[in-house]
Amino acid sequence: MFMDRHLFEFTLQAKQNRARAGTFLTPHGPILTPIFAPVGTQASVKAVTSSQLIDIDTNLVLSNTYHLYLRPGDELIAQIGGLHEFMNWKRPILTDSGGYQVYSLAESRKITDDGVTFRSHIDGSMHHLTPEKSISIQENLGADIIMVFDECAPPYDQAYSENAMNRTHAWALRCQAAKKRTDQALFGIVQGGVFPDLRNRSAEFLVGLDFPGYAIGGLSVGETKDEMNTVLEAVDPLLPENKPRYLMGVGTPLDIINGVIRGIDIFDCVLPTRLARHHAAMTRYRRYNLLNASYAKDFKPIDDTCDCYTCKNYSRAYIRHLIMAKEILAATLLSIHNLFSLIHLTTEIRQSILNNQFIHFAESFLTEFEDANRNLRDLSPEKGSTQI
Amino acid sequence: MFMDRHLFEFTLQAKQNRARAGTFLTPHGPILTPIFAPVGTQASVKAVTSSQLIDIDTNLVLSNTYHLYLRPGDELIAQIGGLHEFMNWKRPILTDSGGYQVYSLAESRKITDDGVTFRSHIDGSMHHLTPEKSISIQENLGADIIMVFDECAPPYDQAYSENAMNRTHAWALRCQAAKKRTDQALFGIVQGGVFPDLRNRSAEFLVGLDFPGYAIGGLSVGETKDEMNTVLEAVDPLLPENKPRYLMGVGTPLDIINGVIRGIDIFDCVLPTRLARHHAAMTRYRRYNLLNASYAKDFKPIDDTCDCYTCKNYSRAYIRHLIMAKEILAATLLSIHNLFSLIHLTTEIRQSILNNQFIHFAESFLTEFEDANRNLRDLSPEKGSTQI
Repeated sequence: MFMDRHLFEFTLQAKQNRARAGTFLTPHGPILTPIFAPVGTQASVKAVTSSQLIDIDTNLVLSNTYHLYLRPGDELIAQIGGLHEFMNWKRPILTDSGGYQVYSLAESRKITDDGVTFRSHIDGSMHHLTPEKSISIQENLGADIIMVFDECAPPYDQAYSENAMNRTHAWALRCQAAKKRTDQALFGIVQGGVFPDLRNRSAEFLVGLDFPGYAIGGLSVGETKDEMNTVLEAVDPLLPENKPRYLMGVGTPLDIINGVIRGIDIFDCVLPTRLARHHAAMTRYRRYNLLNASYAKDFKPIDDTCDCYTCKNYSRAYIRHLIMAKEILAATLLSIHNLFSLIHLTTEIRQSILNNQFIHFAESFLTEFEDANRNLRDLSPEKGSTQI
Repeated sequence: MFMDRHLFEFTLQAKQNRARAGTFLTPHGPILTPIFAPVGTQASVKAVTSSQLIDIDTNLVLSNTYHLYLRPGDELIAQIGGLHEFMNWKRPILTDSGGYQVYSLAESRKITDDGVTFRSHIDGSMHHLTPEKSISIQENLGADIIMVFDECAPPYDQAYSENAMNRTHAWALRCQAAKKRTDQALFGIVQGGVFPDLRNRSAEFLVGLDFPGYAIGGLSVGETKDEMNTVLEAVDPLLPENKPRYLMGVGTPLDIINGVIRGIDIFDCVLPTRLARHHAAMTRYRRYNLLNASYAKDFKPIDDTCDCYTCKNYSRAYIRHLIMAKEILAATLLSIHNLFSLIHLTTEIRQSILNNQFIHFAESFLTEFEDANRNLRDLSPEKGSTQI
């Protein structure tokens, strides 16, 4: 165990152009970056056990404050000793603030400077979430990394984005003031839609508050890849080198490469487990829908270069059979593969940065990605800007 | 690897009253009896991976010929190298004949002396299953133990039972004649409803055909525990000591104890995984429905004497939360526990027979079972005759 005085220290181990390899120290062990975090929305990474997550070298897991607050309740989780104990995940955990889900899931929400009043999507009960309440919930959950309560704006409305950004800044101050626990790192969230000017102002304001880490929120919500890259490029030079940067809710292989190129350290996304439940296998350069009849007699693994449990032991034909037969195991095997694929992509990226090989790695990736997707009739939504 | 000349040899290692501990040698390793076999109806033990099955010391797995014939098709499975390869189960497998499912699942079935014509429950297509066809399918699947094609009768209709028994006997001869592979053990199936006289005739006839093992079919289909026990007691003395006996589709803890007491070696049942998907945990003496609100803040494991992955790592409160949140992981964790519970019951039974302690073990079990169930308001369907 590292010394307390090093808690939440971020050490930059290597840098190539803007790409970074670092180590962030948490109470549940070090986070080696770049890293991809699977999402356990309701305190469960869907369809896999903690043991299976460990087998695929998962380190950081994300869970959602909004969901856990509503069910089973953060106080119940505090009683059992926190989220690590509750969901049997003894490695680092990150919780979001509840903000994003309030905007995307809750019904009849009303936002004021004080906070957000909303109706639960589960039972219709009314709730009021404020920066102070979000911190209190996240302290009950006990994750290693917690997030400020923010307002997520539609990406293209500049006036709305500016208002939401200013509110997010005021709330960031209140979150800092409300925080009591010293064993959790509170990250600020840069907002400002697709507008580089707003993003600059947001980054500057938050850096002034000296958070132990910075998230970039409000992306991957409908904007183009170019717009996302422009925002990342605007923010990167303003964020301190010695703090981790987290790109929220982003996680296709291409997005991860593009994010690392622009200085991002931490990624999370529901995509690998959600695609798994919709019969899709992710490989580095493309996706396969295993429901497709062409896989009925395909006895190869999903990816014969992949070392995951699924690819080492099961064929495409078997997984397609499980899908056709509506067997739960299909979701489990595809989730294991998809998560492994993203986690090991970030592991390889990290190694290439440490070896001063990342530029080459990224160029090869982007070329292969283009080649793999050029001739697909059904163009993947991942296709987009591929410039370094 | 044992010598070929010992293939399908059953060695009786210990016997206490009628209870037996033995070893049955198959091409995929020895089966140590008494044993409980999880059911992988569609080539998947629902909600668990092969690796998880190995972790809970599963040895024998059952799969269903009717389901696999209809989907994905036995020829496809033969192409990939058989069921062991297809479903990634390298330990012994048993397939049933398809008979039972034709009677219980298929639509508009018509039985003649030749075989059964039926409509698929999946797509309405028409099929004709005969003893020869059943063997041909099972040879394509390639299980270690295969079953004769039989007719299952309603348990209380004596005339129907006698006809079905005679047809089962005629079909057993045809199955033996049709069988080509020498690396599969074909078991005969004793039929005859709840009528000891018919059961005696059936056992005598089949023993005359010298099968390498004998199943007792048509039980656990609505008859009482006493009736089941009476049939087992009628059949036991007629079956040869040096062949394994398999009680089809039976598998509550009480049924297993009662079966072992009456000379049974092999059990299988969908109950542990089916109950798991309906939120129920099986322990040795009773069941718990974890959806019950009383478990909301119950931070104990399902069974604090249980060594399974679920009980070692997760609380009742967490599993209830998963159920409420409709998380797939609930079914996985409960399946692991329920299967572990039955498999380790048979392991303990085996050890007690080897140690000459089984009578004591069974008496303690039955006393504790009575105690645990006496005061339950909602009487369990497991409650019944408990005499040795």
